[in-house]
Amino acid sequence: MSVEELPLPIDASPRLQALISQPVPPLTSMPNTIEGWRKFQREEDAEATKITRAAVEMVGATVDLASIAGVPCFRVTPRQVAAKNEGRLIFHVHGGAFVFNGGYAAVGEAALIADAFKACALSVDYRRPPDHPFPAAPDDVLAVWKTVVGEHDAAKIAMAGTSAGGGLIMTTLLRFEEFDLPRPGAAFIGTPAADLTKTGDSTYLNAEVDHVLGRYEGRMEACLRLYAASGDLKDPMLSPIYGDLSGFPPTILISGTRDLLLSSTIRTHRKLRTAGATAELHVYEGQSHADYLMSFPGPESQDALGEIAQFFDRHLRY
Amino acid sequence: MSVEELPLPIDASPRLQALISQPVPPLTSMPNTIEGWRKFQREEDAEATKITRAAVEMVGATVDLASIAGVPCFRVTPRQVAAKNEGRLIFHVHGGAFVFNGGYAAVGEAALIADAFKACALSVDYRRPPDHPFPAAPDDVLAVWKTVVGEHDAAKIAMAGTSAGGGLIMTTLLRFEEFDLPRPGAAFIGTPAADLTKTGDSTYLNAEVDHVLGRYEGRMEACLRLYAASGDLKDPMLSPIYGDLSGFPPTILISGTRDLLLSSTIRTHRKLRTAGATAELHVYEGQSHADYLMSFPGPESQDALGEIAQFFDRHLRY
Repeated sequence: MSVEELPLPIDASPRLQALISQPVPPLTSMPNTIEGWRKFQREEDAEATKITRAAVEMVGATVDLASIAGVPCFRVTPRQVAAKNEGRLIFHVHGGAFVFNGGYAAVGEAALIADAFKACALSVDYRRPPDHPFPAAPDDVLAVWKTVVGEHDAAKIAMAGTSAGGGLIMTTLLRFEEFDLPRPGAAFIGTPAADLTKTGDSTYLNAEVDHVLGRYEGRMEACLRLYAASGDLKDPMLSPIYGDLSGFPPTILISGTRDLLLSSTIRTHRKLRTAGATAELHVYEGQSHADYLMSFPGPESQDALGEIAQFFDRHLRY
Repeated sequence: MSVEELPLPIDASPRLQALISQPVPPLTSMPNTIEGWRKFQREEDAEATKITRAAVEMVGATVDLASIAGVPCFRVTPRQVAAKNEGRLIFHVHGGAFVFNGGYAAVGEAALIADAFKACALSVDYRRPPDHPFPAAPDDVLAVWKTVVGEHDAAKIAMAGTSAGGGLIMTTLLRFEEFDLPRPGAAFIGTPAADLTKTGDSTYLNAEVDHVLGRYEGRMEACLRLYAASGDLKDPMLSPIYGDLSGFPPTILISGTRDLLLSSTIRTHRKLRTAGATAELHVYEGQSHADYLMSFPGPESQDALGEIAQFFDRHLRY
């Protein structure tokens, strides 16, 4: 069924209604050269940077550049840090299909979560294809984590990320045993790229319905294959849902009824529960992929950010 | 999209695969006389009774008839009652589109939950249309609750029900303030009939996909209208999602990605969270309406029953 035939959710705020009413992106041809990808990436990052600057300004956060373990990062200080959050930290990994949202665009989500939770965030501007395919991104995230937990109590840190960011958090957590690294006190894994293959009901039922991703084929698949390079998409280092999720920290997951990655989200939730982890699921009516971010500052976005903040507060040491 | 084009979930057990592979029920004409409805109901109840007898036998539960406040009920004693559950009780309200699963068929779900939680259950065989439309059913559930909480500590009781049963639990809870009744310690509301109108993404996206319900039109709509009689389907006493859910007990909700009532379930979850209630959501890949019951004794069903039992154990006084 196409999204035009689907009624608007009856309770949706005007902000969410406007988002939902956007057309599903058409199937377009993707770059077929390295230079074409670089140009596409620069253009997309520039657009995302504008949106990020507006979001950072709206919440009044301060953003500073940092270099940790040789990886560029951003330190995000919200307008207000709660007294009990002074020793707590959000370790943020941005989304963007592993290809986009680099540079300053990385911090948009970090700023929203830092503002809602009233705690500082550190956002990792990991390397991306076409110049740096897998495993550059998880290597960068792991390197920053190693340094950060040398200076902070891991039980006071929450990992947080959406889409590719959620997938990268899962991949990083899968490597903790090998490197004997301490786990974070909590994680937020929003509509994660936990399975890079076209698997799960929502990749079929929500194709041509999700106004953000549209469908698996085309842009999304091209980005995932560019990132994976010669890797097998079913390798748990690429599709962490196929890994052993035991030992994961308490995790909150968020998706929507129109999200192409709804199945990826609920499958991850069940895998976590089966592995014995504390895991909490929230699904929003009418929302496509990551609409809980894009609908900011609407009430549905505030609601989701509030759930994340409450969850972190319950599970992080202070 | 039709269910034939949808791949089977990759991890589904053979039992669930067999269920999922069943065709979606065709759109059939429904009875148009009271006598026609009575006959249809008798035939359906007889079929459901057979399935219930097999389920009760499989778990080795004992079922006894009781009359409480003039309402026929069943007392279900599982093979094993855990020591700490001796004072705890499952107050069960059966599903069946408000029209079916009366008589002995009422106890199927009660027996499965009693077995998983290792506690006794009481199942209410409420009055149904065509002879007793709304508000006979919620009146019966309320009358039994009033008597039960005169004899039991409500904090030791969990309400539990699927589909129409979940909707009736919600409707009953909405009336507790008016009658100054004590709340149960916890509730399980499985894929509830919380909204009798055709509302929510899943009523569109999962039409012709849900192998149990098929679609809103036809059988489901005819049953809901028979039950509501002249009532307005948006009345909170019929569609409790439109009521004030504040004061609801800690609640666990279950649905699936092919469930026609997925939206009803996740909207109820969000309404409960917004009202300040503890509420936990579980969504199963590939499952249609109430497949977590129908796939018993498969592992997905055991998993769902295990979640319900853990939730009750965490929240009920003992």
